[in-house]
Amino acid sequence: MPSLHLHHHPLDPPSRRVRLALGEKGVAFETLLERPWAPRPDYLALDPSGAVPVLVMEDESRALVLGGADAICEYLEETQPSPSLLGADPAVRAEVRRLVHWFEHRMAEEVTQHLLGEKVFKRLHGSGEPNSVCLRAGYQNIHAHLDYIGWLVDHRNWLAGSELSLADLAAAAQLSALDYIGDVPWDQHVSARDWYGRIKSRPAFRSLLGDRLVGLPPTGHYADVDF
Amino acid sequence: MPSLHLHHHPLDPPSRRVRLALGEKGVAFETLLERPWAPRPDYLALDPSGAVPVLVMEDESRALVLGGADAICEYLEETQPSPSLLGADPAVRAEVRRLVHWFEHRMAEEVTQHLLGEKVFKRLHGSGEPNSVCLRAGYQNIHAHLDYIGWLVDHRNWLAGSELSLADLAAAAQLSALDYIGDVPWDQHVSARDWYGRIKSRPAFRSLLGDRLVGLPPTGHYADVDF
Repeated sequence: MPSLHLHHHPLDPPSRRVRLALGEKGVAFETLLERPWAPRPDYLALDPSGAVPVLVMEDESRALVLGGADAICEYLEETQPSPSLLGADPAVRAEVRRLVHWFEHRMAEEVTQHLLGEKVFKRLHGSGEPNSVCLRAGYQNIHAHLDYIGWLVDHRNWLAGSELSLADLAAAAQLSALDYIGDVPWDQHVSARDWYGRIKSRPAFRSLLGDRLVGLPPTGHYADVDF
Repeated sequence: MPSLHLHHHPLDPPSRRVRLALGEKGVAFETLLERPWAPRPDYLALDPSGAVPVLVMEDESRALVLGGADAICEYLEETQPSPSLLGADPAVRAEVRRLVHWFEHRMAEEVTQHLLGEKVFKRLHGSGEPNSVCLRAGYQNIHAHLDYIGWLVDHRNWLAGSELSLADLAAAAQLSALDYIGDVPWDQHVSARDWYGRIKSRPAFRSLLGDRLVGLPPTGHYADVDF
């Protein structure tokens, strides 16, 4: 068995997607904290983007370096196909990938970067106070994303179809990071909250719920499965 | 045989990646021009992101809608695996996907959005003159990306390994759109230019070289294979 090390940041949503995918597949791994806004030279040598996540799989003969949540999750699916997080039907797999991109790029840009980026990462970077225009945009935009999640689960059980998939993990990765700072208006989005309750109670979610950043504790209900 | 319609914008790099992938796999398709900054209601009904590309595959019994370059290219690879644009080895496939993400997100943000975004899309949106700070950043950042392409092809033949892959198509998609406006300093990057010459002379590239935007002709050497 190779040893697996995931270079990540606890509040980075793509890193959270990978942690959830590894957990769902029952793959043991250790984490290493990176600060992607000021990457170590050794880390840049692993992956020139300096971004997280990067998964390093090492055995006696070689070290395999997988850079980025897409590359890591697709590799896991190819090498450990069961349980599948993409499904068997190519059309379903395409829908999963469409939604992963939606959450990891569209929602990240419209919501997560405006809220988590301004309130947490800006502080970690030491680059000043949150911009109120960004915060307002984030608080406004999150409703459309929660509505869309609600609409999907009202029609499909899980986000991309009848089975849990990477689409659920990508959406939960964004929302769990936002929930850490208490910025998800769950009370106004019952279907999305019910879906999140289902995914939050899965064993793979436990490590995320145990995250604690020094000097920045999570808000009250963050780790509460009955929120 | 289903009929294939690709909703795209001619200068959108992810749309170009899909056109190249379809071409390399020998799949016939028609294109429909979209304006993703002001999506038609009918188009939003196809894909709520309003973004390009979207591929619609239709036969008598159903229409399959694939949203986004990742979903489309992975679907093509799963349903028409030959010639492969990902390779057979999971480690190589992960490297292809790492590089696709690098070009389609990192290079897009650091270069393409600063140059093509400011000079072309801002004008198409009707949202003002190019921002000179963005232009300077784009002109500066492109060198690191061309150096990286040069380094990769000096070590590997194609960008992700010994075979042409989606990584090459993703990089060529960004650069060909930038080349349309004459913003690629090829003379200072010989290895990258040699690689681009190889990919530019492939039959799949011809449709890109025939693109002409109304009121915005390409710069002199855009369609010239001996540039």
